[in-house]
Amino acid sequence: MFRPQIKVFDCTIRDGGLINNHDFSYDFVRAVYKALSAAGVDYIELGYKNSSRLFSNKEYGPWKFCSDEDILRVTEGIESHSKISVMVDVDRVDMEEVKSASESPVDMVRVAAYVKDIDKAIFLANNFAAKGYETTINIMAISRDQGPELDEALRQIGEESKVLAVYIVDSFGALYQEQVEYLVKKFKTYLKDKEVGFHGHNNQQLAFGNTIEAIIHDANFLDGTVYGIGRAAGNCPLELLIGFLKNPKFNIRAVLDLISKEFIPLREKIEWGYIIPYAIAGMMNQHPKAAMALRNSESKENYREFYESLVDVEMD
Amino acid sequence: MFRPQIKVFDCTIRDGGLINNHDFSYDFVRAVYKALSAAGVDYIELGYKNSSRLFSNKEYGPWKFCSDEDILRVTEGIESHSKISVMVDVDRVDMEEVKSASESPVDMVRVAAYVKDIDKAIFLANNFAAKGYETTINIMAISRDQGPELDEALRQIGEESKVLAVYIVDSFGALYQEQVEYLVKKFKTYLKDKEVGFHGHNNQQLAFGNTIEAIIHDANFLDGTVYGIGRAAGNCPLELLIGFLKNPKFNIRAVLDLISKEFIPLREKIEWGYIIPYAIAGMMNQHPKAAMALRNSESKENYREFYESLVDVEMD
Repeated sequence: MFRPQIKVFDCTIRDGGLINNHDFSYDFVRAVYKALSAAGVDYIELGYKNSSRLFSNKEYGPWKFCSDEDILRVTEGIESHSKISVMVDVDRVDMEEVKSASESPVDMVRVAAYVKDIDKAIFLANNFAAKGYETTINIMAISRDQGPELDEALRQIGEESKVLAVYIVDSFGALYQEQVEYLVKKFKTYLKDKEVGFHGHNNQQLAFGNTIEAIIHDANFLDGTVYGIGRAAGNCPLELLIGFLKNPKFNIRAVLDLISKEFIPLREKIEWGYIIPYAIAGMMNQHPKAAMALRNSESKENYREFYESLVDVEMD
Repeated sequence: MFRPQIKVFDCTIRDGGLINNHDFSYDFVRAVYKALSAAGVDYIELGYKNSSRLFSNKEYGPWKFCSDEDILRVTEGIESHSKISVMVDVDRVDMEEVKSASESPVDMVRVAAYVKDIDKAIFLANNFAAKGYETTINIMAISRDQGPELDEALRQIGEESKVLAVYIVDSFGALYQEQVEYLVKKFKTYLKDKEVGFHGHNNQQLAFGNTIEAIIHDANFLDGTVYGIGRAAGNCPLELLIGFLKNPKFNIRAVLDLISKEFIPLREKIEWGYIIPYAIAGMMNQHPKAAMALRNSESKENYREFYESLVDVEMD
């Protein structure tokens, strides 16, 4: 699949940071940035830009805040054609802290929001756009939010925002291919002059397959993470995505080295991937938080009891 | 997805046996058979029916041979509506050893063959059908064999055999959705009165997604294995497939218990699943044997060197 419009968007450090309170070492982030730059990835997302007044830097590592200084510390001196991205949540940014794009190492700001918060998301994205940043809006938990409010949100984004792309975010890892096809087509109906993005979660081992499905229907912003790292079941493995895309600008070798050297040892320390409670949560279209709690308990392998507990939630 | 024609075909013991020389204990196989019967799986495949004159029972466990006695030992006394299957390879069966279906616990015999051996496969399948068995032909390594010989093989199977279904077997885990769609449609063109089956391998985490794709295009025989066990990267996880199919005859609870009790401990002892060298072999449409050798060597995590070695093979 060679389509020059396709952008490969790595969110290893950002989504991976949800497992370890965004506390990757500077050396680790620098190694990731270097390898992904060599791999030719279009965007590298390093974390969230949260207000330092809302969260303590004693509780969270640097990639919860992504100060320009910290970003420069892991990127300076490395040859790269990759753009740098940060993610923001509505109500958690302090725009006063944000310099204009021309004074910052950041190129792209992605606004994550639920459908109900879409007005706030548009406002925030337009604010960043006014400061010169590229922007996207990423609609989270979309498997639960496919009613008429979604249509209205898409219409509004199309008319009122300057974002480059709008993402389908399968936060619960619940979508199957047919739903991805339906959603990409719907997004494209409302967003004539914008790109569609896809961010999968791998609860049911469908993050990569669903990303391919999104590509088939003309989504061009594609998220992946190295070795699929990410909260709970993790994301679409970047190495598979690069293997699938035939664009010669990508080079998988640097990613393979990075996995050997950094991610195999890391996976011994923190957990993500195909784990049955996350699969169950995905099948049931539920947030992974109950499964994450289970994995931190003594009943971590007690799948059936966990299944029954989610069935009970559904029945409530 | 509820379609009454769909048959869920478990090959946990058969494909899993490729990792451990078919040497699962009787207790283990009995536990699997019991749980899958309770789960409502349509077929349970217990191994290969190889001639005991060709292979030594000192080198291989009982599920390389699947004698009727061994099958009865693990199934007797268990309430089950599941049919029992065995697999055969061309040139490895001794038909003299095979009783008629009415005297055997086996219901189904699946003949695995490459396109080049399709005449032998038809001959063998017809022999088993004459003895009263249900039969399928499973076309292996199909990602390498999509030329006009495949069309000819399908035409022959359609005209000359009595099989219930013909399988697309993605032995190398190399197929993407679009190829699955293409193949299922091609198979249906030639096999008007037969079902199409799909057996995925999970090298690129696409076994489940490709199985869904096959379902969308009307394949009705669907292979899976518990927790995805199987040679190298393994297969489509049965628990995900059952979670996807909405037919109330399936019950996922028994499978979840089985994974907790038997497969989590087993996975500590033998390896299968998403492992980078298998992913690389899948991307390159190659047999996993080189990757399996790597995993048994000291360079098991040396992915880049392995990648280069496969690139060299491609260039030869």
